[in-house]
Amino acid sequence: MKTSFIDVTKVKKCADYIRYLSLESIEGAKSGHPGLPLGCAELGVLLYRYILRFNPEDPGWIDRDRFILSAGHGSMLLYSLLYLTGYRITLEDLRKFRQLESKTPGHPEYHIEYGIETTTGPLGQGFANAVGCAIEGKMLAQRFNRDEFDLFDYTIYTLMGDGCMMEGISSEAGSLAGHLGLDNLIAIYDSNRISIDGPTSLTMSEDTAARFEALGWHVEKADIKEIETLYSHLENLKTLKGKPKLLVMETTIGEGLYKKKDTADIHGSPAGIDEIAYFIQNSEIKHIFEEKYGKTDVQDKQKLMEILQNRQKNKEPLLQEPDSKAFIEQGPDERKKDYLEWKKKFESYQQQYKDLYEQLSFYLHFEFPGSLRDKLLNYNYFKGDEKKKTAAVRGISGKVLNLCANQLPQLVGGSADLTDSTKAKVENTDYIKRDNFAGRKIFFGVREHAMGAIGNGLALNKIMIPFTGTFFTFFDYMKPAVRMSALMKLKHLFIFSHDSIYVGEDGPTHQPIEHLNALRLIPDIYTFRPANDMETAFAYLYFLQEMDGPAAIVTTRQDLPEEVFTLPKNRERNREELYKQFKNGAYIFYETEGAQKPGIIFAASGSEVSLALQTAKLVEKNGKKAARVISIPCLELFSEAGISYKSRLFHHDQTPLVVIETASHRGIDLFYDKRTILVDIETFGKSAPYLELEKHFGFTPGAIYNRIAENIDLPPLENKEK
Amino acid sequence: MKTSFIDVTKVKKCADYIRYLSLESIEGAKSGHPGLPLGCAELGVLLYRYILRFNPEDPGWIDRDRFILSAGHGSMLLYSLLYLTGYRITLEDLRKFRQLESKTPGHPEYHIEYGIETTTGPLGQGFANAVGCAIEGKMLAQRFNRDEFDLFDYTIYTLMGDGCMMEGISSEAGSLAGHLGLDNLIAIYDSNRISIDGPTSLTMSEDTAARFEALGWHVEKADIKEIETLYSHLENLKTLKGKPKLLVMETTIGEGLYKKKDTADIHGSPAGIDEIAYFIQNSEIKHIFEEKYGKTDVQDKQKLMEILQNRQKNKEPLLQEPDSKAFIEQGPDERKKDYLEWKKKFESYQQQYKDLYEQLSFYLHFEFPGSLRDKLLNYNYFKGDEKKKTAAVRGISGKVLNLCANQLPQLVGGSADLTDSTKAKVENTDYIKRDNFAGRKIFFGVREHAMGAIGNGLALNKIMIPFTGTFFTFFDYMKPAVRMSALMKLKHLFIFSHDSIYVGEDGPTHQPIEHLNALRLIPDIYTFRPANDMETAFAYLYFLQEMDGPAAIVTTRQDLPEEVFTLPKNRERNREELYKQFKNGAYIFYETEGAQKPGIIFAASGSEVSLALQTAKLVEKNGKKAARVISIPCLELFSEAGISYKSRLFHHDQTPLVVIETASHRGIDLFYDKRTILVDIETFGKSAPYLELEKHFGFTPGAIYNRIAENIDLPPLENKEK
Repeated sequence: MKTSFIDVTKVKKCADYIRYLSLESIEGAKSGHPGLPLGCAELGVLLYRYILRFNPEDPGWIDRDRFILSAGHGSMLLYSLLYLTGYRITLEDLRKFRQLESKTPGHPEYHIEYGIETTTGPLGQGFANAVGCAIEGKMLAQRFNRDEFDLFDYTIYTLMGDGCMMEGISSEAGSLAGHLGLDNLIAIYDSNRISIDGPTSLTMSEDTAARFEALGWHVEKADIKEIETLYSHLENLKTLKGKPKLLVMETTIGEGLYKKKDTADIHGSPAGIDEIAYFIQNSEIKHIFEEKYGKTDVQDKQKLMEILQNRQKNKEPLLQEPDSKAFIEQGPDERKKDYLEWKKKFESYQQQYKDLYEQLSFYLHFEFPGSLRDKLLNYNYFKGDEKKKTAAVRGISGKVLNLCANQLPQLVGGSADLTDSTKAKVENTDYIKRDNFAGRKIFFGVREHAMGAIGNGLALNKIMIPFTGTFFTFFDYMKPAVRMSALMKLKHLFIFSHDSIYVGEDGPTHQPIEHLNALRLIPDIYTFRPANDMETAFAYLYFLQEMDGPAAIVTTRQDLPEEVFTLPKNRERNREELYKQFKNGAYIFYETEGAQKPGIIFAASGSEVSLALQTAKLVEKNGKKAARVISIPCLELFSEAGISYKSRLFHHDQTPLVVIETASHRGIDLFYDKRTILVDIETFGKSAPYLELEKHFGFTPGAIYNRIAENIDLPPLENKEK
Repeated sequence: MKTSFIDVTKVKKCADYIRYLSLESIEGAKSGHPGLPLGCAELGVLLYRYILRFNPEDPGWIDRDRFILSAGHGSMLLYSLLYLTGYRITLEDLRKFRQLESKTPGHPEYHIEYGIETTTGPLGQGFANAVGCAIEGKMLAQRFNRDEFDLFDYTIYTLMGDGCMMEGISSEAGSLAGHLGLDNLIAIYDSNRISIDGPTSLTMSEDTAARFEALGWHVEKADIKEIETLYSHLENLKTLKGKPKLLVMETTIGEGLYKKKDTADIHGSPAGIDEIAYFIQNSEIKHIFEEKYGKTDVQDKQKLMEILQNRQKNKEPLLQEPDSKAFIEQGPDERKKDYLEWKKKFESYQQQYKDLYEQLSFYLHFEFPGSLRDKLLNYNYFKGDEKKKTAAVRGISGKVLNLCANQLPQLVGGSADLTDSTKAKVENTDYIKRDNFAGRKIFFGVREHAMGAIGNGLALNKIMIPFTGTFFTFFDYMKPAVRMSALMKLKHLFIFSHDSIYVGEDGPTHQPIEHLNALRLIPDIYTFRPANDMETAFAYLYFLQEMDGPAAIVTTRQDLPEEVFTLPKNRERNREELYKQFKNGAYIFYETEGAQKPGIIFAASGSEVSLALQTAKLVEKNGKKAARVISIPCLELFSEAGISYKSRLFHHDQTPLVVIETASHRGIDLFYDKRTILVDIETFGKSAPYLELEKHFGFTPGAIYNRIAENIDLPPLENKEK
């Protein structure tokens, strides 16, 4: 028990100062969530003053302890602590809470330089991110720690609310964390028994502690009112080995207030001047008001309320409380010793473990290897196996992934129980397990949502490059995490296989329809749907070398026909130029030999490129028209490409344009160009062999030919071609 | 202990017959999942022979016990049982397993007439549906059961696999079920310790039984090998009161096979002729082969394999086993007594509880009340409160919902902890709780995914009309369930409030961007985004009176300005005609007075209709152009409307068309008509007051005016209008 170190009086005062900062900032913004900062202030002080190892002058220190506020609505707690401990967040920044372009948005937004480890708000995400960080910590430790050189020895702390606990993702991530025995993870459950609708007893009567024990966690219970005991728990939990740890911490939402304390009202609305006045009069930081406004006025509630009102009206700066700031700053100051020791250790490591140090440097200062660029640029799936003529994109993707993984040890990941189906695995490596994190394969289990968010957690430090894979239809299960990866611009690769009705017999539940365009709609993520081996390799190259943010690779289950692997023309001699075109998101995949200009243009992605090709040849032969086939491996890039590039591909406005995708464009097709013939699918799929489904849904060259013939002059097909 | 009733020998034989049916059907389809049907066959026999109350001649009997195969990939178990018990699924149907338009698709598809209670496949959905069914059972019982008239006394059985258990939705739904004490729910966990990637020990070491106990469930354990004990458990669980019940049943995946038994191989691929031959030789149904092909040949493995191969090649009918069919049919035969008694009881109820019977009839044979139609058709939010001039669509939606709820007692639902924010609640009614299900409010907790699937469960019987609500950004968390509602065409209303960047300070995590068009892309669900009170009432009217499937109503957080509540012209006198136009998905909301034809057309939905209106007036005044504003309350309906209606609204191809939505059209805008000026948002939002965000993202009349001026000839704006 190290309770002797604790200065309870100062902790309480500092906690009240955080309460004050939160209350006035939220009041100023006229919106925000005071409930959590008020309820958890003492915990925040204990963590940042006594527990966490960090250095605000080097916020990205790779061995820092991480604090993740999974209950992101309580952002003012985090911002207050970051201000107090000397991060680059000032009192003025707190005053700009929730204002445009401030450092203090409504929910914390990922910014390591400011001490914000991840974006939170959507409940449960932060907790699953924390599990990802903990896995990364274990991986790095096993790869690089040697004897006395425990370079990676950090602990992840995460604060969760009732909402995080109710979300399914917390069970998914919690179950995996328990399975892996992530003892570098400490979750603290802010159990205040209040959610937005009222007391949690309206809807929740589970024994959450027992639930986590069942998931393989070590669980302790504490009450935030007993500060010394709370501290002992935190110290104790840190030392326990073998299991992730949960501290169920009883708190009171809105602690320090009068009427709104312990009510749902204070969860997500400003407390109001009346409550703030009450709080100040009864708080440990009353003196800062008395010093500025005089004891008499502060003791008079009406007067104090007037003062507070005027402060808001005039947007006056938040008051300083130098004692609390000085007190809490002792935290990082004391830890500076650890930091400097670590730096020294790291220097010695460089001497003693030269090779390892170089390996680590490759993780920390990622530079894409030129030799890998060459391999990807010139990739040919069939090289060395000339008998094979056809292949599925998922298989190609798996091979390309491993080509990359051979040279990029930071590429780690796995699938949600569909490893061999999605081919999202690093070959010839072990899977990670309790007490052995040397491997690079992660068996996420049937837990897509946690997988996505754990993958995000693995990407946060920009050390690992995670990939996660599942069937494209189950993108739905992980969508909230995919969105977060885009919002944070994390380098996280999503591998989605089984990308259309060509899934076949598994039927409509397993056949993506709306998913392709739904994915494209998300800002800041790029969706690649390659049509052959070259495009697959290009997609990996583009993601790995040129992108900082996330990408999705969408792959076929079924084999594609031989001809797509022989195109575009000169494909083996012209790769640099083709890659340049690829980066525009679309390019000419095929064009009628010797044609001056196309009489018809086809545009398609993925497996439909081969279909476009076959249809184009029908039109050439029967319609005597020159045809052009455009492959669109990335519609977003194409949409962003310059207008002259687009015009070059689309020729001019009168040329008929046939767009083929086995994906929904429902509703949004309304505004399509009049010359556009859209061959898509806006109903759910069906269970049948996929060759049957092609016919059923009209995705055959003959059927598309006939669709075109409805719009432009074409002779009827011969029977055998129908 | 009623084990004396059990004929273990026949159960085993019947189970082997199911194994045979599954193996040959899957082999014929060349795809499918034998693991579960083989592992759980005895359970299936026990349930359908001894436990479940049902009548294949009246599959929709409202007091039947329900069996939901949450692990939907094991569909051949269900299809075999339905064939054996006399539902409208024949041996020929089994032979057509996974073929186009068969009754036996890859995963079970909702079809009460065939005995299929819900569509399953995406893991965990069926379990959450079962929770919804159990809630409905409790609600109906409390509303309509009287003294000796226990009209609604059914039990829901659901079979879950390891995958269902790993998915977060099972924790969410399990937690709520435990909270509500749903003792009419019995979940059976097919614990075979194998998932697709291999043994579950690769990724799962939780104590699932303890997890469910922590969630408030009664848990028992059994082994499928001990058939009599298993039966006792099932009988015992039925009688236990106060808690939902979980039976953890140890099974062996692929039971009956030789090498593939207890391996991941048998989860999702045909067993192969070799294994089938081994199974037949060692099974209780060997005789059906011996009878047909002779003992000698069947005892010779090579010969048997040839037989089996030829059977597949010639697509020979599956073999009959009359004993097993006769045996299992005794189940429904014996239960017929219950059924007939119930029918008699129902007739007496009609006499004795005339009012209640009439109420119940209104649930069972839904006819939309004409008086409600009138109210909705002529709805005016401000009637009776003329001082109010502006309103948020979420508030209007809440009022309209309650207008409907007053006349439709079957309208039940709630929100995922955002009841007062989304206004998704029935006023003046209690919330449902353990032992009291009279209320119509459901507090789902912060469990969006379970909420969606529980809502689907409530809709399955077509008795209740559920609604569920959350912030639009959290549509992501429930997307898999929204998809299932569309796939099953369930009458389920999704109420999504806080629909855009106008959410403001909560920032990008809480501001939907991609969600609007992502929702529209899903087949068979309609998305309404009303621009005022009239459109909101029309949307409810359309959903409730004219639709059988699901709809989403997407509403603003912020107040809309006065002018949208005074339009379209003659809005109070012309409602029938306006409703007709509304049903086309779009209509003329405003047009410059006296104009012959529009010089510019605006199209927008929801809150952007008011913005379009304001911009139109700027263009009128400064550009001297006649303007038309089209409101698009439902883009999908508009896209489906006849071409002449569309042309009428869009005038002709040269008129500039300004499309305004604070939603992403990323990528898909590429193919838009050349005359279209798209004002949308393809980045994430930001945390700030929404009036700041309007400016930041260019959603002000002045900014849009200037965008238009870039494309067509317009004079510059005066300063004050910028």
